[in-house]
Amino acid sequence: MKSWKNRSLIEARELSEPEIRAVLARAGELKKLWQGWRGSEFPHQSLRGKTVVNLFFEPSTRTRSSFELAADRLGAHVLNLSPEGSSISKGETLFDTAKNLEAMDPDLLVVRHASAGAPYQLSKIVRVPIINAGDGFHEHPSQALLDAFTIEEAKGGIKGLRILIVGDIAHSRVARSCIYTFRTLGAKVAVCGPPSLIPPSVESLGVTLDYHLHRAIRDADVVMMLRIQLERQARNTPGGTRANTQFPSLGEYSRFWGLNVETVKELKQGAIIMHPGPLNEGVEISQEVATGPYSVILNQVSNGVIVRMALMDLILGNGGRSA
Amino acid sequence: MKSWKNRSLIEARELSEPEIRAVLARAGELKKLWQGWRGSEFPHQSLRGKTVVNLFFEPSTRTRSSFELAADRLGAHVLNLSPEGSSISKGETLFDTAKNLEAMDPDLLVVRHASAGAPYQLSKIVRVPIINAGDGFHEHPSQALLDAFTIEEAKGGIKGLRILIVGDIAHSRVARSCIYTFRTLGAKVAVCGPPSLIPPSVESLGVTLDYHLHRAIRDADVVMMLRIQLERQARNTPGGTRANTQFPSLGEYSRFWGLNVETVKELKQGAIIMHPGPLNEGVEISQEVATGPYSVILNQVSNGVIVRMALMDLILGNGGRSA
Amino acid sequence: MKSWKNRSLIEARELSEPEIRAVLARAGELKKLWQGWRGSEFPHQSLRGKTVVNLFFEPSTRTRSSFELAADRLGAHVLNLSPEGSSISKGETLFDTAKNLEAMDPDLLVVRHASAGAPYQLSKIVRVPIINAGDGFHEHPSQALLDAFTIEEAKGGIKGLRILIVGDIAHSRVARSCIYTFRTLGAKVAVCGPPSLIPPSVESLGVTLDYHLHRAIRDADVVMMLRIQLERQARNTPGGTRANTQFPSLGEYSRFWGLNVETVKELKQGAIIMHPGPLNEGVEISQEVATGPYSVILNQVSNGVIVRMALMDLILGNGGRSA
Repeated sequence: MKSWKNRSLIEARELSEPEIRAVLARAGELKKLWQGWRGSEFPHQSLRGKTVVNLFFEPSTRTRSSFELAADRLGAHVLNLSPEGSSISKGETLFDTAKNLEAMDPDLLVVRHASAGAPYQLSKIVRVPIINAGDGFHEHPSQALLDAFTIEEAKGGIKGLRILIVGDIAHSRVARSCIYTFRTLGAKVAVCGPPSLIPPSVESLGVTLDYHLHRAIRDADVVMMLRIQLERQARNTPGGTRANTQFPSLGEYSRFWGLNVETVKELKQGAIIMHPGPLNEGVEISQEVATGPYSVILNQVSNGVIVRMALMDLILGNGGRSA
Repeated sequence: MKSWKNRSLIEARELSEPEIRAVLARAGELKKLWQGWRGSEFPHQSLRGKTVVNLFFEPSTRTRSSFELAADRLGAHVLNLSPEGSSISKGETLFDTAKNLEAMDPDLLVVRHASAGAPYQLSKIVRVPIINAGDGFHEHPSQALLDAFTIEEAKGGIKGLRILIVGDIAHSRVARSCIYTFRTLGAKVAVCGPPSLIPPSVESLGVTLDYHLHRAIRDADVVMMLRIQLERQARNTPGGTRANTQFPSLGEYSRFWGLNVETVKELKQGAIIMHPGPLNEGVEISQEVATGPYSVILNQVSNGVIVRMALMDLILGNGGRSA
Repeated sequence: MKSWKNRSLIEARELSEPEIRAVLARAGELKKLWQGWRGSEFPHQSLRGKTVVNLFFEPSTRTRSSFELAADRLGAHVLNLSPEGSSISKGETLFDTAKNLEAMDPDLLVVRHASAGAPYQLSKIVRVPIINAGDGFHEHPSQALLDAFTIEEAKGGIKGLRILIVGDIAHSRVARSCIYTFRTLGAKVAVCGPPSLIPPSVESLGVTLDYHLHRAIRDADVVMMLRIQLERQARNTPGGTRANTQFPSLGEYSRFWGLNVETVKELKQGAIIMHPGPLNEGVEISQEVATGPYSVILNQVSNGVIVRMALMDLILGNGGRSA
């Protein structure tokens, strides 16, 4: 097991079970501390005097907020940067931006970028640790860690559970990171979605595959719905250009791969429903299901801040400054 | 009198006199403390460890800054969010955004929204206290509280004073909040403006009405000019479409309902002039008047931060942490 | 020598040698403290409880970040404001914005504006000290101070050095501020660039002039390349409108006034290369040169934060709160 100290987190794929366990354990401690805390300042100020840079080349209110709040709680300064399009080529901008930021001596870069691999490239250029906050269709590892934490919290463990991931598997960085993480922790992962949105090689990732949600859902202990990118779907609605024939219509998608009060009747007792957000209510999930008794969607949001605190604490904290 | 502790402030209409008095009294204490303070950190750090979210669906530099500085001074963290247009319907976005924010465990939401009632709806959905920082044509209660504070500071009290509000009464959330607040505190409120911009039922709010500024101004102890929304006026200028015939031309507006060096000659000795900002100089108020001896416009800005500190302190502070 | 206490910095032209020396000396102390510091919070919290406003009328990620990090390190709150275009005339907006900000009681305004003279005008209106962070083609004094600091650090001093500034001298606020600063400190400054981009009166600033980079570079101890504004150049590329005939084509510019591995062979042993960033790699400087052994470009970035800390510390700090 590699130490987390001053380490970048680029891919869930590279994480060993003990490394994931270290994050989940720290998150559990911090959650207990956070919930039990009364008074003025959160007692675990392990990032006091540190600077965390949120470097978001793609806009994101939720993930950016989650990292900002996590850093705030631990006492860090947060610098929010959203570089815009530039007249010079992307590669130069990224390199130049990264080297400049490094020269300003920050302690951590949280990077979101539309291009798969951008955070990895940055991590080769700068010595500052980097957390990948989502890169193209590649990975979003902190999302997978918070999902694993939420599953364990709700189900008492994750090993041996049957976890079903539903939707556009081919273009989902969340799906990729989750598959790696859940499998490393010993879960059985299945995927489900329209045939055109399942990559041909998906079974090589160690998952099983079913195109029929009504059938697949019966065995699941955990059902994770992915967000449909409406801007793609739009092309296939009446009046759209139908340029992209990979996607079924929204109605078809919702009918066959959406979760609604009818579908959830097939669920096992005690199964849970997850979604990385933001929701397209009425498309991949109905409002009744999203806010219903099976749903742990808001727990995911809440645990998102906690798990990111744990990550930052392991990477930057001195481990002994708790009051 | 309801306690301010963990309470939302959605409408000035709902405030009792003792509730308003509690805010004004705390603002007075905090202003004294702020002005007398020398040294490094403001001694009243009653929001240390708290997180205030500025959730501004409408852009606003001034109001957002005022809340941010107020929270900063008391030791809170501030998270600035400006959600943009989304492909999903507004109702869902608002609900979804609110539930997600709540899951991240903030202590206070400061909400501005273009739709009247949005902060109220949020306050029914989430348990986090909310301050309405302006919603459509409905209310802007913290503005009314800072205006009341400024009037009392300048005039030694507000009860029995004649307060004249001038301009587009029909579409002004500031006017509505001020009418409720000033009346609750015992002032006599009159409104003045073009007939097309005075709602027919305005007298049911307990105010008197005069269409002639030159006449109405003579009795006033306080004259509050409202901001004209230039984007509406523009439609009536030469070359505009004249689609909206509710509004007089800018020249006509300025001549009949604007405040200039000629108009202020009618003012009583000791009367004061207010404006919620930002000013359209030369339209509803001339620069000489805005910066002249009657004007307390900058006091309003300065007291804005103080009164918002008082509100946050009452809602979130523990009341006993002053150094 | 005027005291720095509560003082505005609008122009490098107005600075005496002892005044510049005071900044450089404080920067040297703070750099030593910063590099030697281990533990949680930077020990020199001389701006604790102070509010610094970044008032950027022009967008700037780098300079804004540099000031924000400098203020953060010393313990200040930072309020970021980026006023957008408004329907009222600029002069009114600027005045109104400034008076409003002043009423909110900040301790320092850092102002960037597209119009030369805007920070000066503000400094006449408000009592809050102002640092000019770049105004039109006029000045960018903190850039010149960090450049002087970087030169002294690299070369052991600046007096008597030959400093060559290359590029669009006519439209560069960096060039103007640097010429004043370097000359005041006793350096010999030369400028070089296309004849159309050298102001006719440049020699009245006390600099020498050479149109040939290959010749001028041989004597230089320091070569400072300026950034070419690509949006101007674009007009002269094939297909452009050629409306602006002041500028040579990019290819021509790069060939005659760009720095590449061939050009730097002419450099003296121990000479250094500077650039205020962001770089147009392949235009005014090649990547090999920018990242090569002569280059101190990243030192400029790193020292930028330090020198801005020194400025803020002199202007706002109490000078005795170091732990």
